[in-house]
Amino acid sequence: MDIATQTSTAWLSDDDLEMVRANVPIVYVDAVPVRVDSLGNVIEVGMLLRVAADGTISRMVVTGRVMFNERVREALMRHCEKDLGPLAFPRVPANPTPFTVVEYFPDPDRSGFYDPRHHAVSLAYVVPVEGECEPTQEALDLTWFTPEEAVGREVRESMTSGHDRLIRLALAHVGKLP
Amino acid sequence: MDIATQTSTAWLSDDDLEMVRANVPIVYVDAVPVRVDSLGNVIEVGMLLRVAADGTISRMVVTGRVMFNERVREALMRHCEKDLGPLAFPRVPANPTPFTVVEYFPDPDRSGFYDPRHHAVSLAYVVPVEGECEPTQEALDLTWFTPEEAVGREVRESMTSGHDRLIRLALAHVGKLP
Amino acid sequence: MDIATQTSTAWLSDDDLEMVRANVPIVYVDAVPVRVDSLGNVIEVGMLLRVAADGTISRMVVTGRVMFNERVREALMRHCEKDLGPLAFPRVPANPTPFTVVEYFPDPDRSGFYDPRHHAVSLAYVVPVEGECEPTQEALDLTWFTPEEAVGREVRESMTSGHDRLIRLALAHVGKLP
Amino acid sequence: MDIATQTSTAWLSDDDLEMVRANVPIVYVDAVPVRVDSLGNVIEVGMLLRVAADGTISRMVVTGRVMFNERVREALMRHCEKDLGPLAFPRVPANPTPFTVVEYFPDPDRSGFYDPRHHAVSLAYVVPVEGECEPTQEALDLTWFTPEEAVGREVRESMTSGHDRLIRLALAHVGKLP
Repeated sequence: MDIATQTSTAWLSDDDLEMVRANVPIVYVDAVPVRVDSLGNVIEVGMLLRVAADGTISRMVVTGRVMFNERVREALMRHCEKDLGPLAFPRVPANPTPFTVVEYFPDPDRSGFYDPRHHAVSLAYVVPVEGECEPTQEALDLTWFTPEEAVGREVRESMTSGHDRLIRLALAHVGKLP
Repeated sequence: MDIATQTSTAWLSDDDLEMVRANVPIVYVDAVPVRVDSLGNVIEVGMLLRVAADGTISRMVVTGRVMFNERVREALMRHCEKDLGPLAFPRVPANPTPFTVVEYFPDPDRSGFYDPRHHAVSLAYVVPVEGECEPTQEALDLTWFTPEEAVGREVRESMTSGHDRLIRLALAHVGKLP
Repeated sequence: MDIATQTSTAWLSDDDLEMVRANVPIVYVDAVPVRVDSLGNVIEVGMLLRVAADGTISRMVVTGRVMFNERVREALMRHCEKDLGPLAFPRVPANPTPFTVVEYFPDPDRSGFYDPRHHAVSLAYVVPVEGECEPTQEALDLTWFTPEEAVGREVRESMTSGHDRLIRLALAHVGKLP
Repeated sequence: MDIATQTSTAWLSDDDLEMVRANVPIVYVDAVPVRVDSLGNVIEVGMLLRVAADGTISRMVVTGRVMFNERVREALMRHCEKDLGPLAFPRVPANPTPFTVVEYFPDPDRSGFYDPRHHAVSLAYVVPVEGECEPTQEALDLTWFTPEEAVGREVRESMTSGHDRLIRLALAHVGKLP
């Protein structure tokens, strides 16, 4: 089990990465970090503040590529640890089925989910975290929001590329969409 | 939130219980207790040994009624605590959707799931437990099995009423059906 | 397989029905009728206009009890045929898992889903219909709305008891929540 | 919407395809074709007989790549039409969530799902088909099996690469695993 925190460009030369991005969909995972109460109810959603794929400084969920020979679970854990810190203790669900499949396209109108760099097919999971989170690497901040706040105007306007919609799909999945 | 461990007959007189059982489906929850590794992979399934609804001494999952005015989550937690002990620390999933709906009928051929006492519609969940389990109340024993053991002949033959099939559905749901 | 369209009070005397409703949760099914395109995308949501459980004339989904000895699928089909007419050709999903579990309580604050008559645990499904729908029995009207219209203010304000939220959960489940 | 039936190698040169396969996971879809009765119960599973990725002549489900700029739904429909013929009328589910995620690796022990050519992450769906199926292109035959037959020894021994396990996961998902 290799869950090392390689940087995302280590695994392909820039030229090869360009070729891949221009020709095939990339496998991604998205993780929506949440806090749950003792009965499993989602009470808060965590969002990173970071430079998004579209160049804006935005609120975002945890997101990243699945590497060659890596299990989806390992990728999910690796990106959660990379973005939330080593003490977050993410609880990747036992069920491997994502709550939704997010299709990011260079064309913003193709699906409503946008990534100017490539076409990515992302498996999206709700991941309860129990430990202390501190944003690492490129993230500027991590903030927890109640479900009401997470779908409110202020947070929605701080998100781009369809990430606000992804939050609503995640809250619906756990029965907490206001 | 009331998760008191009332005995199952406290809430209706025997006559009224008979009338209910003869006329309407009863809402149930089934919980398949599991141990997971740090990546969320199910590595063991817990099964109780107890007197089943059909009178046999059988391997079983956690199961029980949802009471009037009780949330499904609360019922799930209450039955897990009742059967696995107060230190089991069950992690009820954030997603309220069961992995399957089990329909128990007095007629064993109606669905393959059997309960001579009534027609029950049971919401079935896989519940990771992290703490120490000790069977309480009516259970004689709690044993952990690997996925291979859990679907093997010996364990299957110790189960009745379709519970062996429920175990296979649960393992399939978490991607661990051998 | 009995999917006769008995009226809902035929199966219990009024006294017994009162006793049941006051003491145990009732098993329900909710069906959100949808139109899909050739690729399976939901393009419209159907809503009935009828007298709701709370006495208002409201937009609603198909909803009703599961009877004693009835399979969940049979109940779903029976209520769809009863409310949408015999030529609707509902396509009950192959997967028996509901997209969400709706808990209706006499206390409107218990879960946000409200039914003054009883505590119901309802298995909710999205059901594509292909044929001609015409509302039957108690429904005054059936109207199809795009996802955008279905979550818009006008439709939301014509719904009570949490049914507007159920529509949003259904649209999220099929990836079409705006 | 482009659901043209390009051959699978048209979109990359052989050299580029080799580079991609050696370096990144490929996005795939798997479709398990089924026949359902009027209540949505799965009564038969369809399996192709064809040359599998490992070179054996095996029973298989419908499987294939998602192309650049193609929606997952479109890929699913394209591969179903390609393998089952133009009159199969596959009904791609409204819910975009796969019933499981199949991870094929060049190492047969990595996940139990094997593909000597590459690492593929495949979204797997159960797809009811209503029309006439006739295997096209590389398939030699299409045969329908009951759930009991589909998990029986004879069919299992005619499958490789984990496809027999995929069939069991699909049948569990629809509640029909024997």
